Amino acid sequence: MRANPVLEKWRNGEKTIGAWLSSDSSYVAETMGHVGFDWLCIDQQHGISDYASTFQMLQAISTTNTTPFVRVAWNDSATIMRALDAGAYGIVIPLVNNAEEAKKAVWACRYPPDGGRSSGPNRAILYGGSDYQAEANKEIACIVMIETAEAIENIDSILSVEGIDAAYIGPSDLAYALEMTPTGDNNNPDHVKTVEAIFDACIRHGVAPGIHTGSVEYTSRWLSHGFQMVNLGTDIQFLRSRASDSLSQVK
Amino acid sequence: MRANPVLEKWRNGEKTIGAWLSSDSSYVAETMGHVGFDWLCIDQQHGISDYASTFQMLQAISTTNTTPFVRVAWNDSATIMRALDAGAYGIVIPLVNNAEEAKKAVWACRYPPDGGRSSGPNRAILYGGSDYQAEANKEIACIVMIETAEAIENIDSILSVEGIDAAYIGPSDLAYALEMTPTGDNNNPDHVKTVEAIFDACIRHGVAPGIHTGSVEYTSRWLSHGFQMVNLGTDIQFLRSRASDSLSQVK
Amino acid sequence: MRANPVLEKWRNGEKTIGAWLSSDSSYVAETMGHVGFDWLCIDQQHGISDYASTFQMLQAISTTNTTPFVRVAWNDSATIMRALDAGAYGIVIPLVNNAEEAKKAVWACRYPPDGGRSSGPNRAILYGGSDYQAEANKEIACIVMIETAEAIENIDSILSVEGIDAAYIGPSDLAYALEMTPTGDNNNPDHVKTVEAIFDACIRHGVAPGIHTGSVEYTSRWLSHGFQMVNLGTDIQFLRSRASDSLSQVK
Amino acid sequence: MRANPVLEKWRNGEKTIGAWLSSDSSYVAETMGHVGFDWLCIDQQHGISDYASTFQMLQAISTTNTTPFVRVAWNDSATIMRALDAGAYGIVIPLVNNAEEAKKAVWACRYPPDGGRSSGPNRAILYGGSDYQAEANKEIACIVMIETAEAIENIDSILSVEGIDAAYIGPSDLAYALEMTPTGDNNNPDHVKTVEAIFDACIRHGVAPGIHTGSVEYTSRWLSHGFQMVNLGTDIQFLRSRASDSLSQVK
Amino acid sequence: MRANPVLEKWRNGEKTIGAWLSSDSSYVAETMGHVGFDWLCIDQQHGISDYASTFQMLQAISTTNTTPFVRVAWNDSATIMRALDAGAYGIVIPLVNNAEEAKKAVWACRYPPDGGRSSGPNRAILYGGSDYQAEANKEIACIVMIETAEAIENIDSILSVEGIDAAYIGPSDLAYALEMTPTGDNNNPDHVKTVEAIFDACIRHGVAPGIHTGSVEYTSRWLSHGFQMVNLGTDIQFLRSRASDSLSQVK
Amino acid sequence: MRANPVLEKWRNGEKTIGAWLSSDSSYVAETMGHVGFDWLCIDQQHGISDYASTFQMLQAISTTNTTPFVRVAWNDSATIMRALDAGAYGIVIPLVNNAEEAKKAVWACRYPPDGGRSSGPNRAILYGGSDYQAEANKEIACIVMIETAEAIENIDSILSVEGIDAAYIGPSDLAYALEMTPTGDNNNPDHVKTVEAIFDACIRHGVAPGIHTGSVEYTSRWLSHGFQMVNLGTDIQFLRSRASDSLSQVK
Repeated sequence: MRANPVLEKWRNGEKTIGAWLSSDSSYVAETMGHVGFDWLCIDQQHGISDYASTFQMLQAISTTNTTPFVRVAWNDSATIMRALDAGAYGIVIPLVNNAEEAKKAVWACRYPPDGGRSSGPNRAILYGGSDYQAEANKEIACIVMIETAEAIENIDSILSVEGIDAAYIGPSDLAYALEMTPTGDNNNPDHVKTVEAIFDACIRHGVAPGIHTGSVEYTSRWLSHGFQMVNLGTDIQFLRSRASDSLSQVK
Repeated sequence: MRANPVLEKWRNGEKTIGAWLSSDSSYVAETMGHVGFDWLCIDQQHGISDYASTFQMLQAISTTNTTPFVRVAWNDSATIMRALDAGAYGIVIPLVNNAEEAKKAVWACRYPPDGGRSSGPNRAILYGGSDYQAEANKEIACIVMIETAEAIENIDSILSVEGIDAAYIGPSDLAYALEMTPTGDNNNPDHVKTVEAIFDACIRHGVAPGIHTGSVEYTSRWLSHGFQMVNLGTDIQFLRSRASDSLSQVK
Repeated sequence: MRANPVLEKWRNGEKTIGAWLSSDSSYVAETMGHVGFDWLCIDQQHGISDYASTFQMLQAISTTNTTPFVRVAWNDSATIMRALDAGAYGIVIPLVNNAEEAKKAVWACRYPPDGGRSSGPNRAILYGGSDYQAEANKEIACIVMIETAEAIENIDSILSVEGIDAAYIGPSDLAYALEMTPTGDNNNPDHVKTVEAIFDACIRHGVAPGIHTGSVEYTSRWLSHGFQMVNLGTDIQFLRSRASDSLSQVK
Repeated sequence: MRANPVLEKWRNGEKTIGAWLSSDSSYVAETMGHVGFDWLCIDQQHGISDYASTFQMLQAISTTNTTPFVRVAWNDSATIMRALDAGAYGIVIPLVNNAEEAKKAVWACRYPPDGGRSSGPNRAILYGGSDYQAEANKEIACIVMIETAEAIENIDSILSVEGIDAAYIGPSDLAYALEMTPTGDNNNPDHVKTVEAIFDACIRHGVAPGIHTGSVEYTSRWLSHGFQMVNLGTDIQFLRSRASDSLSQVK
Repeated sequence: MRANPVLEKWRNGEKTIGAWLSSDSSYVAETMGHVGFDWLCIDQQHGISDYASTFQMLQAISTTNTTPFVRVAWNDSATIMRALDAGAYGIVIPLVNNAEEAKKAVWACRYPPDGGRSSGPNRAILYGGSDYQAEANKEIACIVMIETAEAIENIDSILSVEGIDAAYIGPSDLAYALEMTPTGDNNNPDHVKTVEAIFDACIRHGVAPGIHTGSVEYTSRWLSHGFQMVNLGTDIQFLRSRASDSLSQVK
Repeated sequence: MRANPVLEKWRNGEKTIGAWLSSDSSYVAETMGHVGFDWLCIDQQHGISDYASTFQMLQAISTTNTTPFVRVAWNDSATIMRALDAGAYGIVIPLVNNAEEAKKAVWACRYPPDGGRSSGPNRAILYGGSDYQAEANKEIACIVMIETAEAIENIDSILSVEGIDAAYIGPSDLAYALEMTPTGDNNNPDHVKTVEAIFDACIRHGVAPGIHTGSVEYTSRWLSHGFQMVNLGTDIQFLRSRASDSLSQVK
């Protein structure tokens, strides 16, 4: 089976930088696949992809060495299994609140006996290889998002769940959880403190710590802090910011 | 009928800045529509849009005040008429070589008696208003591209054709015409001299001069020179350059 | 943030007339947007739109002043949040049976602290404006459908739920709830009595009363009765009835 | 091979009533297929269908007994052949000006030795039957549009071309040809006189006369006159007129 | 209402052979519809269809006499109802574990008073006929999959649920349930014994027994055993195996 | 630039086996890419792909080592250039009749000074590499189809045109040219003699000879004869024949 280089880096204590795909365009996805990120995450929650475009974007990313992730819209087993069958090598599950929900996420990501994933890896076998089904449990990343008040309370029980590969912080929803106004990259000391506490919990539990940022500055900051899965931005942010900046410079 | 603010600016001697849409995504198109360009050009020649995605992108751009153009893949009358029926307010026709081809382009852009456009403005009437058909000949921009050796020779006869609103230089194909290697923004003195000669011809004939660039630097340079229709970049260029630059900064 | 004129009318005690979109065509949606309805509701339950076509239809409706609603297929939080992120200004939730389900619907429609909507309004910010996230809880309509036997019993507790803007009657499913054969517009006295009872409950609780009809006659009747959200018909009904009637007249 | 009931009626001197599909929705197409028209014409010229949606609409119409036609955007051989391969049973070719163009249209519609249609009826063989290729030249309708000044002059030579099954008048473009403002259904005596002259020419040459209308009144009028192929309206017209009328009645 | 010939055969004790559609192509679906299977099952679980392509594939299959089924990705009521509204005549529900889940599946497949299906059969009425809603409960097949350890234990209570028309064995997931490695067609004696035990339970409860195979050999074997719903293969398997075999023969 | 292994084989006198893609499915394309053919040809003439699906199929094939070709519907320069920009590594041009038409085909396939291809390789640069534009003229295969009476007469002048890499025989249209009924694989002695004559002409002119077959038998036969580009079958043929054969065996 094709190995998952991102998982390998995490297991080796190395860092990875990725980007988010908010659009549903396979051309954008292929273009982003050539930029050099470790992983790209197709966003079915706040991005606009649904299954059909995800399938095509996974094909597009597969023309490159970038590892494809999918963020599902919800901790829904059928959706997770379908994204995996289509060839995703990592699933980001939003709004995981407690160990039970984390176990549900793992269950959907793993074939028996480790979980309950149903047999039928349609495109995954093309991408991963003919031994996909036998090896998949070792190569598929299960990534839970930590971004709610309940999750902060339950952080240790969540991260103790067998099969969680990474914990990914969503700073905007985390701000809501801390009763702040969401601001994307967030400098509020309480916010920062919480991020660092989640990081420490990850380290305690041997889970790769991750965080969503929207800037070079925050990506650098959290990489330096030791985060192993850092998002630098989204396709739409890159597009809009460069277009706006350039237009401003001309005007 | 909804007026064409870009045409109005050209007629008033003012300048306009636009961008190219190489993707086929209506979400990208709507995002770009909010950046503040005067016009956006959906590229059916070297971009990946065909009619169906063009239709949706025109709807998306119509949620903003940006004026929608379409570059057709060829000087093909049916394709031009269909883009207009879908609500394009300007058509960019590539590779126009001589007055006859320029007349053919105008013919497709204008209802009788000025041309031969067939009656049936399906979406154009939604975007333009119920008097669209009566007024369209005054509000639709017909833009010919000057980028071949033959066109350089015929520049005066081309620009003399009644109904040409702008002449748009494609620097890459122009480089081929001058037996150079295409480089996008081009500093070669012969190339620059030719661009300036085309500009002068436009001024002579009362046609708005335009040019495709891929950078702030060249957009500024040619705007300063007096060009009235300047492309700053494409969606894919903005996306890829910002993503690459940011990733380099982090690494 | 762009205001929600339908919500404003309801709050002022005024009436609104809308139509249903059963097709998945953005061209149909834009055409319907020019007819002059107060709102259009993209139907993901019994219509054929899924997320991708909903996104394009929302873009199409956004070229007009008509307010876009989406009826989700189920009281599913992720689906509701995605429709809102795409720019829906109202969500119609079918088959709400009790206060708990009504609270779940509101929870998905509102950002914290009023609910649990996740942060990330991709297209909503283009349509609503840059202050969308701060203001959205005030401008997004949460509309529960009352159409089951259980809901009739629980009508007061459902309508007491904070954040319900309107209650919308589905007459066909309501007929099933009353153990009748569904007939669309329904003249059965028990059906009428139930509709009126739901109306009265809405008035008691300060919730805008709404009802689905399929004819001029029933729209007029229920508007006269005081209903504030009345559906006149669906795109497919309009299309088929006019085509059939015209063909009959000719034959 | 599945017979073409419309061609049969024409050959028997009978009349047919059809409708135009301006949208690109296969659900609309299937709905219209159940209304009871003799034929439906997918409009690739002023409607918004391109090949991909045409293919799906042809599948949808094939669930009914209605005969599927396609109006191509131009007298383009490849486009005609592709529409036929997809299962169209009639091709409407716009803007045919003279006998040479009419021959070109026939050439694309007929297999050798009657024409130059290339071998490869992908979906046509599913719809038409396994003997499709042997029989198609007898069952496929070739319909030329008469709507230009040049065509009026050349009417006899056009209609003398072997293989033309019907001549279809486009009243709006015909108005342009007569130097009038297009009005759809047209009462201008010169316009009417020209329509009647074309009708007479059809009778002279044994070609089925056809005309595009947008109302019950004009459909009835021209059917009474003897026209054998009359369009009653388009999907979008049916939809918009019924929606607008109903809304007006309620308001 | 159009009758369901597959259900009729099952009720008469006859056998049916079908195939799976793993692709999302309506052209493939129509092609497969002409092969002569009793039924075709669009696979939304391990195949790549989602709602939009399912809708088009249902249209395509409806041009033939083959009966269309849909396997939903999960026992999700909204998804089942939407597939039925689109014209599916049978629903295959995966991973049904117990009587409660079986009842939930039936509930979604049946209108009141037999179930809770919501009123609004958009395309179903085109395919099934105008009396669809009155007759649907008798003609729609509800097919539960038996493939988990829990289901094996609960086989009698599951098959006792009123409204279950068939029980369909998924051999790969069943292998997981038996703690074996999935192999598609499975010769392991314990696997075979379990399949036969499920078959016997079906006979006991008057439910049509079904099984998924991937070969002529196993289809023949289980048909001989008495299975009434046997899958011969998937579109992608047929395609890939014939292409590979042919290429091997040539090389 | 990524090399074209098929061109390399032809230049070395080696043979290649490929297959045709008549469907428009990127999943089918990717599946076929794993079968092991030297090349796959997306068929825009008699297959159902248009530009949008071609783009996605090219992405899908690019996940494998199979070389992607596109058969355009016509010798149309814009269509050829767009297929190349999308990443096709070979273009098959149907119905080439004479040297002038062959030159037109080459012109569209080659950048200046060898031809007139317009600058702008959007996706081609992702697939081919950053030096694509400088090297493309050497790596892109231009393949003309020989299948008309006129072409048979002009075979030497056609094959003398600089830049033709292969000549591909379409046996069905060739049958028409020889006034026979098309039969796919064709055993008629006159047909065979003509095929062999075209083969000999290819050898004379140093052009790779190619032929379309639909069976193992004919592929083997013509490979033995020395043909270097032989089509074994189409996706739809593989699918339908295996499904039909298997069903017959079971019944």
